[in-house]
Amino acid sequence: MSRRVITLTTDFGHGSAYVAAMKGVILSINPEAALVDISHDIPPQDIRRAALVLADVCDRFPAETIHVAVVDPGVGSARRIIYMHLGTQHYIAPDNGLLSALVVRRTPTKIVELAEPSFWLEPVSPTFHGRDVMAPVAARLSLGLDPERLGVRRDEIVRLVWPEVKVSDRRIAGMVQSVDSFGNLITNITAEELAAIPAGIEVHVRCGEHETFGIFRTYSDQPPMTLIALVGSSGRLELAIVDDSAAAMLGESAGSEVTLSW
Amino acid sequence: MSRRVITLTTDFGHGSAYVAAMKGVILSINPEAALVDISHDIPPQDIRRAALVLADVCDRFPAETIHVAVVDPGVGSARRIIYMHLGTQHYIAPDNGLLSALVVRRTPTKIVELAEPSFWLEPVSPTFHGRDVMAPVAARLSLGLDPERLGVRRDEIVRLVWPEVKVSDRRIAGMVQSVDSFGNLITNITAEELAAIPAGIEVHVRCGEHETFGIFRTYSDQPPMTLIALVGSSGRLELAIVDDSAAAMLGESAGSEVTLSW
Amino acid sequence: MSRRVITLTTDFGHGSAYVAAMKGVILSINPEAALVDISHDIPPQDIRRAALVLADVCDRFPAETIHVAVVDPGVGSARRIIYMHLGTQHYIAPDNGLLSALVVRRTPTKIVELAEPSFWLEPVSPTFHGRDVMAPVAARLSLGLDPERLGVRRDEIVRLVWPEVKVSDRRIAGMVQSVDSFGNLITNITAEELAAIPAGIEVHVRCGEHETFGIFRTYSDQPPMTLIALVGSSGRLELAIVDDSAAAMLGESAGSEVTLSW
Repeated sequence: MSRRVITLTTDFGHGSAYVAAMKGVILSINPEAALVDISHDIPPQDIRRAALVLADVCDRFPAETIHVAVVDPGVGSARRIIYMHLGTQHYIAPDNGLLSALVVRRTPTKIVELAEPSFWLEPVSPTFHGRDVMAPVAARLSLGLDPERLGVRRDEIVRLVWPEVKVSDRRIAGMVQSVDSFGNLITNITAEELAAIPAGIEVHVRCGEHETFGIFRTYSDQPPMTLIALVGSSGRLELAIVDDSAAAMLGESAGSEVTLSW
Repeated sequence: MSRRVITLTTDFGHGSAYVAAMKGVILSINPEAALVDISHDIPPQDIRRAALVLADVCDRFPAETIHVAVVDPGVGSARRIIYMHLGTQHYIAPDNGLLSALVVRRTPTKIVELAEPSFWLEPVSPTFHGRDVMAPVAARLSLGLDPERLGVRRDEIVRLVWPEVKVSDRRIAGMVQSVDSFGNLITNITAEELAAIPAGIEVHVRCGEHETFGIFRTYSDQPPMTLIALVGSSGRLELAIVDDSAAAMLGESAGSEVTLSW
Repeated sequence: MSRRVITLTTDFGHGSAYVAAMKGVILSINPEAALVDISHDIPPQDIRRAALVLADVCDRFPAETIHVAVVDPGVGSARRIIYMHLGTQHYIAPDNGLLSALVVRRTPTKIVELAEPSFWLEPVSPTFHGRDVMAPVAARLSLGLDPERLGVRRDEIVRLVWPEVKVSDRRIAGMVQSVDSFGNLITNITAEELAAIPAGIEVHVRCGEHETFGIFRTYSDQPPMTLIALVGSSGRLELAIVDDSAAAMLGESAGSEVTLSW
């Protein structure tokens, strides 16, 4: 078996000693694991944001990668911790909706509620299951532990409600879902949904009180400081200001309504 | 020998080219080393903060891990650079107190002052011993170099004075030692010291002008926006606002006095 | 062949899912690659800043390291993507000047314009060539792919104009090139250029309206809060305030003029 990848996604903040503690625990069990940070800059307790990040990038990783996600406001409460198998990837997370953007259009092939303390670090801190439950379980999976042994099979995970895109005769209505580091406004409208627009028609794109016309291919297709709509690298419509920050210039952010009409 | 882990802790800032330079030097000597960032977000020259981070997480790492810490305001002066062996771990750092929180209750098994330039990069920059002395020495240790060859045996390291917790008949007095990324106020009062509180008694916890009653198990034990005291994942008393930042809400920070009475 | 190192330098921001996507792509092709982040905190689209960072640290890495740099405001336009071999290192970047600080005094041994889509991820997003072109090409190079097969040989790369240092009879004139995380002002004046100053003469150093005398060896050579000039760890003159931030205290930044006279 080639070297197994374990990714970490948390709201601990970059440079947090909590992240380092998780890595120490993992490497103590499997020193050959390849650790990759997806992000530790999820805003504190922002489960939705983390869920979207996971849905965006996890499928880019090698088959058999183990993704550990810890955004866990309910730590120590009755909320479950789950193992999920989906596609070629494995996931470990609190069952609070964190994995729910991944399963909007796909069905997990296995869900197990973690219930077997012999795979955890003892004593388990009631405030840090990432270190004492999720990290050791991920490390043991990377060594070949059968997920069935982790606990009890379940049929479902907790699912957050994700706003739906409304496609009608001459209109598509969605919203800004996230803002990237360049200030680009990433919507929940996918390229598949944009296929409803008839070929050759110039579409009118509105975000809040701002508007632009047409959907372009790349940022370089318009002059600097122009508001432009395009299909971004995640396959979703995004609004950008060429060479500047759309979020800052327009004052829009996650939750802003975006409509296309023609 | 399995793959050796080398950790880095600095005040260079995440994304600093200084950190990258150290990693390049280490991998040039041992391309198989597993590099782990503990933190590069130590406030500039804040030796005390870095010392606490190291004391918190280093023991989580595999046996034979080599921890390199560079918070080094005295670089180029007469201050020593030391190798220390403690428990199952190895440390390389300027001898300015950076390793002193680790040895509050434990005794190093070996201390060596680095004095053998043949293990360093030449020429040594007088302003960056992290890159030219500590990184190459760590890499060579990871390849099996005997620490005795690094220089001259010493009996002691520089120790900072750490504020003591005062435990009396009906009172424990300590202070906030650090603030985590959630704004939780982590004190220097340990679970062992809390054992002085008689069972069944409700304790009164005061931090500055703020107060709360009782010591809880986890954040979920109280409603949102409540000030709560609990024993955190590092085994020390912490003060938290459920689902919010205690540091921001209370205006308290490292150095604030915390007292428990009953 | 020992484990190959692949470094990443971007303006995506630490904790960006874009960085994670690139890592996933690389590890999917070569799970044994050793990934090192040089910096993801390059200011958005600041090609000059990234170019200087690369020139500063890449040579510290093991022979045969592959450096991938993505600061790419022209993504999707006609700008080329290039492979460059220089010294013992390999580089992949958009041909927008990003590699030009590396070649100020050195000549690349090979330049290839990427033109062979069979080594890319299909479909290539017009807005993220870092993930779909550069990452897979770097991963394949790390597995031994001959760079000649990547596309078409070229003779030159795009070169930014770098301000020259003027050395005259009794004067050296340069400028602040970057500011490090401690607020030290790093100039473009090298130790070689400083050799023009006669031995035993006290030099007068001016930065904007601030001045100091002499060039020292290390920060500890003057009392706290003193403005000091010294040759920093990258071999260039820097201006520092001992134990504080020169950038903040002096209000100077990249572009400020620095003159030495005697």
